[in-house]
Amino acid sequence: MHQDRVRRSDLRDLVVSAEEAARLIKDGMTVGMSGFTRAGEAKAVPMALAERARTEPLKITLITGASLGNDLDKTLAEAHVLARRLPFQSDPALRKAINNGEVMFIDQHLSETVELLRSRQMGPVDIAVIEAVAITEEGGIVPTTSVGNSASFAILAEKVIVEINLSQPAALEGLHDIYIPTHRPAREPIPIVAPQSRIGLPFIPVDPGKIAAIVITTKLDSSSSVLPPDAETRAIAGHLTEFFLHEVKKGRLTERLQPLQAGIGTIANAVLHGLIDTPFHNLTMYSEVLQDSTFDLFDAGKLDFASGSSITLSAAKYQVVLPELPRYKQRLILRPQEISNHPEVVRRLGIIGINTALEFDIYGNINSTHVGGTHMMNGIGGSGDFARNAYLSVFVTKSTAKDGFVSSVVPMVSHVDHTEHDVDLVVTEIGLADLRGLAPRERARLIIANCAHPAYRDALSDYYRRALARGGHTPHVIEEALSWHAKLRECGSMQSEPASVSAQSLAG
Amino acid sequence: MHQDRVRRSDLRDLVVSAEEAARLIKDGMTVGMSGFTRAGEAKAVPMALAERARTEPLKITLITGASLGNDLDKTLAEAHVLARRLPFQSDPALRKAINNGEVMFIDQHLSETVELLRSRQMGPVDIAVIEAVAITEEGGIVPTTSVGNSASFAILAEKVIVEINLSQPAALEGLHDIYIPTHRPAREPIPIVAPQSRIGLPFIPVDPGKIAAIVITTKLDSSSSVLPPDAETRAIAGHLTEFFLHEVKKGRLTERLQPLQAGIGTIANAVLHGLIDTPFHNLTMYSEVLQDSTFDLFDAGKLDFASGSSITLSAAKYQVVLPELPRYKQRLILRPQEISNHPEVVRRLGIIGINTALEFDIYGNINSTHVGGTHMMNGIGGSGDFARNAYLSVFVTKSTAKDGFVSSVVPMVSHVDHTEHDVDLVVTEIGLADLRGLAPRERARLIIANCAHPAYRDALSDYYRRALARGGHTPHVIEEALSWHAKLRECGSMQSEPASVSAQSLAG
Repeated sequence: MHQDRVRRSDLRDLVVSAEEAARLIKDGMTVGMSGFTRAGEAKAVPMALAERARTEPLKITLITGASLGNDLDKTLAEAHVLARRLPFQSDPALRKAINNGEVMFIDQHLSETVELLRSRQMGPVDIAVIEAVAITEEGGIVPTTSVGNSASFAILAEKVIVEINLSQPAALEGLHDIYIPTHRPAREPIPIVAPQSRIGLPFIPVDPGKIAAIVITTKLDSSSSVLPPDAETRAIAGHLTEFFLHEVKKGRLTERLQPLQAGIGTIANAVLHGLIDTPFHNLTMYSEVLQDSTFDLFDAGKLDFASGSSITLSAAKYQVVLPELPRYKQRLILRPQEISNHPEVVRRLGIIGINTALEFDIYGNINSTHVGGTHMMNGIGGSGDFARNAYLSVFVTKSTAKDGFVSSVVPMVSHVDHTEHDVDLVVTEIGLADLRGLAPRERARLIIANCAHPAYRDALSDYYRRALARGGHTPHVIEEALSWHAKLRECGSMQSEPASVSAQSLAG
Repeated sequence: MHQDRVRRSDLRDLVVSAEEAARLIKDGMTVGMSGFTRAGEAKAVPMALAERARTEPLKITLITGASLGNDLDKTLAEAHVLARRLPFQSDPALRKAINNGEVMFIDQHLSETVELLRSRQMGPVDIAVIEAVAITEEGGIVPTTSVGNSASFAILAEKVIVEINLSQPAALEGLHDIYIPTHRPAREPIPIVAPQSRIGLPFIPVDPGKIAAIVITTKLDSSSSVLPPDAETRAIAGHLTEFFLHEVKKGRLTERLQPLQAGIGTIANAVLHGLIDTPFHNLTMYSEVLQDSTFDLFDAGKLDFASGSSITLSAAKYQVVLPELPRYKQRLILRPQEISNHPEVVRRLGIIGINTALEFDIYGNINSTHVGGTHMMNGIGGSGDFARNAYLSVFVTKSTAKDGFVSSVVPMVSHVDHTEHDVDLVVTEIGLADLRGLAPRERARLIIANCAHPAYRDALSDYYRRALARGGHTPHVIEEALSWHAKLRECGSMQSEPASVSAQSLAG
């Protein structure tokens, strides 16, 4: 039974039901589960865990790679299983539990979680639950559509539960490159010098004696929730393309650009998609999540190689790409998120990092996470890993939200995830501001003129003019700096008259 | 004449007066000058430049390593020579010119400036002015008490002016390790695996044909402005020592700790000094500035090796250390600031980074730079390079400032330089908060209880209680979040009654 999937014969006796495996997880434990951007999460054991929580008290600390698919975070949150959750999530029900204080959420740079576990500054991890396509003859675990933190979870945990997912194509084997940095302070350089560098093993090496249970599953990954490009995201992509062309003309970039990273989500995906109809060629990606746009770029003959930590696709794309995996495989690597997002590698390769902002301020500080300065959306994810060390750090967003009642460009962001030091370009559908080498006062003028929605431009200029009268390197009217957010909270709008925002009027 | 200092004979004809050399610098040029934390700055040419500005229009962009000594930034600011200044400064007169908008100041991570110059995203550098102890037979430039950005300035600039400082001891030669990362994206790993790794040359390699003038000088470096430890800084050091001992007991650190970094300034210096009377031993430093405490630790037999980008000492220490340099030399390296602060190396070595905050908030966000959220103090310096990638990121400050009228712990910082993601410990003389693995609500309770001054504790608790009632991952009363700063601006105090703060009552 499943001899090709559980190739080490002495482990085949460990196959049990999800319920039985879940029983290894006790109240109060810290559990590390596979799963990164809705790809490759363990699917059966967490459902069994949620079920069990109906009849007995059960609270765990759940650490993953990033967000989970198949409504797992929703199910676990609604079953009140989660005492603590890290380092990222994107589920509305869990978000609610985080924001009402039921779940303690620790929002971390995605490259750092396993550093903290490895140095025992967090943890220990009691049990790892890892989705796999196979267990090798040596007992090595072959991940599925994501690596995330799975390798370190399996290596550090006392016990490992493996979910063998028969629906995940066997062709995934060979795609992964598992490399774990050595202990500090005697650590060696990470030998990646290009997106295509292979430096590790195609499986997670674990002591087979730690594998405590194997569960057979068949559920597919959820499809991505990314929306197709629209007029505004196309306008954002257009501004960025124009900028890249300008940089090529200036001799600062070549038509191969630099290795590309794009954060998860509709806008970043649309920006990458926008590179199809450009003169750029022989592109590479060194990113965390590989979305539809990666495969569109492959198919368009634009992309030579893509390195990531997961593959997260729309339903339509999934059905095309997965059966064709052998065709793409030579141009793909999936790595642990510690390596896909590693500051050392990001800085060395000189990545162009494109990430999404919730809002940014007139000085280029970015809020990626907190609605109204207080309520968690998803988490910082890998944006900090990339933005800080990128060759070019780009943040994109539409200039307004909530039907124009919210301006994405504000006097002062209500929460800072990325400081102005880490932001080179900000782009909305209105335009792009190139902030490189500019002082705050220069940034403000450019951002207001180039990026703010016309409906908010005057109010921003008025604020800046009054701030300027008070002086300072970064002028503010401090008692008014967050008044736009206070007004939004009270009146549901940042201005008296809502901005008139139709995609046509903006992008046309 | 100066044959031992200008060892390449064909360059000796280039010796000219400072005035003559300064004439190479034209209005509108970008000039890269040596100097890092008041050490090793070019001393004569900038003075001549300021003098010249009395009689002719002269504005330049001045890029240095970090802050300059000998009142150079003051002199240049008062002569209105500076149109643009980066990446760091610490002079009151320049600060004033920055805050009133006369000088455009670009506040950068100290490791990043030369990346931007090398990739031509800033610049070009027209002229470099570098203080040196010698020019070698090959024409290599041997820096003095700092390396800073001098190597890249000299390599990238069209012309180089060298100031040979006869007062800087010849024994400095051999101390430096000049390594320049290769071009991206084909960059190799930086091969540093320990603070004592030597990977480069003992001089800056430049095309001798670019050396356009040599000026002979004799002025000494300014002494550091660091104050001796007081009761409060001793209390901060005490809390941190206690924490380290606890970590050793838990097996997370050894008595050798991890390589240490300490930011410039009184508190960080005092914290390092505090390690003398502890069981820790065989310590190493991988830092940017080496201050008095480094040599105190050497003399106490506590420190094995120190790597930095500059040596900045008090007058008393300077007179002891400089003549004894040969004795210390085997245990010292000075590197380019790009390398001393490089994220790749900081993460690899697992550094304990200790930096100073102006203020921090109840969630652990740090303001290092902006007084009242608007007025620049010095700049972010290297704190971001270290804090983001450190094994342990520590921020220290006294719990109050301005005779107790200002609380250093506030509801929301008025400017963010380091986000909560990058902050592991915050320490005041009151106590220490260990934030590792905690959610914002847990951080707030700990910071208020452990770090806030008693005079402000109730007001912070009251704010937090009311914020909590509104919910959110990071609760705030958004319209009040910056009210403490607004009040300070209006009334000169953050509270009705000033905190009674005597060193005795706090630290006793």
